[in-house]
Amino acid sequence: RISWISDIIVVVSPENIETMKTIIEKYGHKRVTVVEGGITRHRSIFNGLKVFAENEFSSHLLQKPEVVIIHDAVRPFVEEDIVSKVVMAAKEHGAAGAIRPLVSTVIASAADGCLDHSLERARYRASEMPQAFLFDIIYEAYQQCTDYDLDYGTECLHLALKYCKTNAKLVEGTADLWKVTYKRDLYAAESIIKDNLSQQVCVITNVKETHAQVGFLLPESLKSQIKVEAISISPSKSDSHLQNIFSGQCYNFVCVNYKKCAVQETQQLVDMLEKSNIPLLYPVVLILVHLDISENTSFSIGMEDLTTIKKFARETKKKNILVYGLLIQYK
Amino acid sequence: RISWISDIIVVVSPENIETMKTIIEKYGHKRVTVVEGGITRHRSIFNGLKVFAENEFSSHLLQKPEVVIIHDAVRPFVEEDIVSKVVMAAKEHGAAGAIRPLVSTVIASAADGCLDHSLERARYRASEMPQAFLFDIIYEAYQQCTDYDLDYGTECLHLALKYCKTNAKLVEGTADLWKVTYKRDLYAAESIIKDNLSQQVCVITNVKETHAQVGFLLPESLKSQIKVEAISISPSKSDSHLQNIFSGQCYNFVCVNYKKCAVQETQQLVDMLEKSNIPLLYPVVLILVHLDISENTSFSIGMEDLTTIKKFARETKKKNILVYGLLIQYK
Repeated sequence: RISWISDIIVVVSPENIETMKTIIEKYGHKRVTVVEGGITRHRSIFNGLKVFAENEFSSHLLQKPEVVIIHDAVRPFVEEDIVSKVVMAAKEHGAAGAIRPLVSTVIASAADGCLDHSLERARYRASEMPQAFLFDIIYEAYQQCTDYDLDYGTECLHLALKYCKTNAKLVEGTADLWKVTYKRDLYAAESIIKDNLSQQVCVITNVKETHAQVGFLLPESLKSQIKVEAISISPSKSDSHLQNIFSGQCYNFVCVNYKKCAVQETQQLVDMLEKSNIPLLYPVVLILVHLDISENTSFSIGMEDLTTIKKFARETKKKNILVYGLLIQYK
Repeated sequence: RISWISDIIVVVSPENIETMKTIIEKYGHKRVTVVEGGITRHRSIFNGLKVFAENEFSSHLLQKPEVVIIHDAVRPFVEEDIVSKVVMAAKEHGAAGAIRPLVSTVIASAADGCLDHSLERARYRASEMPQAFLFDIIYEAYQQCTDYDLDYGTECLHLALKYCKTNAKLVEGTADLWKVTYKRDLYAAESIIKDNLSQQVCVITNVKETHAQVGFLLPESLKSQIKVEAISISPSKSDSHLQNIFSGQCYNFVCVNYKKCAVQETQQLVDMLEKSNIPLLYPVVLILVHLDISENTSFSIGMEDLTTIKKFARETKKKNILVYGLLIQYK
């Protein structure tokens, strides 16, 4: 995702190495080397750094970088902007890390489980990730540090300060850098992803002129809530326009049809989506709206049409494309 | 909710006092006194405490309690168990507060925005709420403390220590005590509430003997995921059983019917739910399942039935009861 990062080392516990390799292959990640983790945080990071310096840890020695970034997998929402800021600060100061204001007051407890003292909240910060270092500084710090550091320490900035006299530059991070720790954090993370995926919708209308106003009114009323791309011709005729939308990472499509069951047109769209690799990372939602223009009081769509759509949806689901049908009586 | 708490003081900013009074009336809260807040956390808490000691702050002086609990409204998930533990510890030690392990390392920054030092994470804790105090201790502390404390301090335990030499007992709290601070925390809170509301479902079947197996199979297959109460007679005949379920705070109901449109029976259930006050705090979900046993390939339900259900659902929504219809072709 970030082009100026030349190599990515993923440090994984031994039992998860195969799973990680499967993930890397499935999603087509490049520039990634998987390394076996240690029993503590610092031992794992040290293993990751050794790839650039010691032959025994990798089949091919990667080129030693000027700056190395250290990040936690439990902080999935890291923007290029903060990574860039931390790297530039590390280049200048030797070390840098993201920080956030403290949400709660921090206190020290005495041996008897009672309050010893409390810290003045405004003077302290939570140390977050990413952090960046001149490679030579952090590698030197890990080589110098004691077994006690490796087993009980948690802070890389502390090692750089203690063993290389490098005072890290602190960079204010965004709220989204928080550590996904508790079950509720998974819910929060899911909601942030859903929010991001719901930024844009593409409405494709393929209806008779006389009913085209529906295809016009829907995008208009959606526009107040979401970015809308409206296409009013059949998908096969607007390949290049659709390609532009795909490259804009649109995950939501509404197809408005007056025909009973527009499976063929929908199949074309599904094929194009599949080729675009968009459904690889997140599910694409495709809502087929069938406009019922008959004058009957019962529905014009029969069970066999429903069965066709259901079967179609079951197939596309395997490709991470979720098809829903919507029937609207329209007079 | 907690019967042994005799009075609840809600400290609110001046502009929100009317809103708060409306909320208290709407949800029928008892034992609540609303007090105007100050411009800082400590000034607001002090205002709240004065109600028990100074006539001018309340039309009627409330009886001074032995122990007072201080809590944040931004921590909505507080269990009676932790409140009780903190109160008992305060009774013994004079002061007590909930704590949690630190999620991130805490660091101190120097004036130049660089790292000064980092704290050993295992030696420190995040101070959370609720906290409890012997009333005389915390009130004395607030009377003694300086304007600087009132304007810049954040920690009540600190005031009790500094001005009354009381070392608070620290009590390990649950993860749900966290402070709802960011937008993502609202998502997390919503999910926790939804999780709690989805613990139990009541299935009410009202179908012919020959089709009763559906009413039997549904609860059976749900049982692996959720606590299920199954009732197989019409709701009017099982008032006492339903009342038991209502008092168990069940928020989810599935009614299985073979009749075209069982609005009358559903109305009875809605009336009972409304009387129970269950929909007052959270929405109740009521799913009407219509079993279509006709041999036709098209649906036996017509537009007029759909309109009836839609109209009915619109009415019950005002009572915080969400009615959904589900049509199942069943042969």
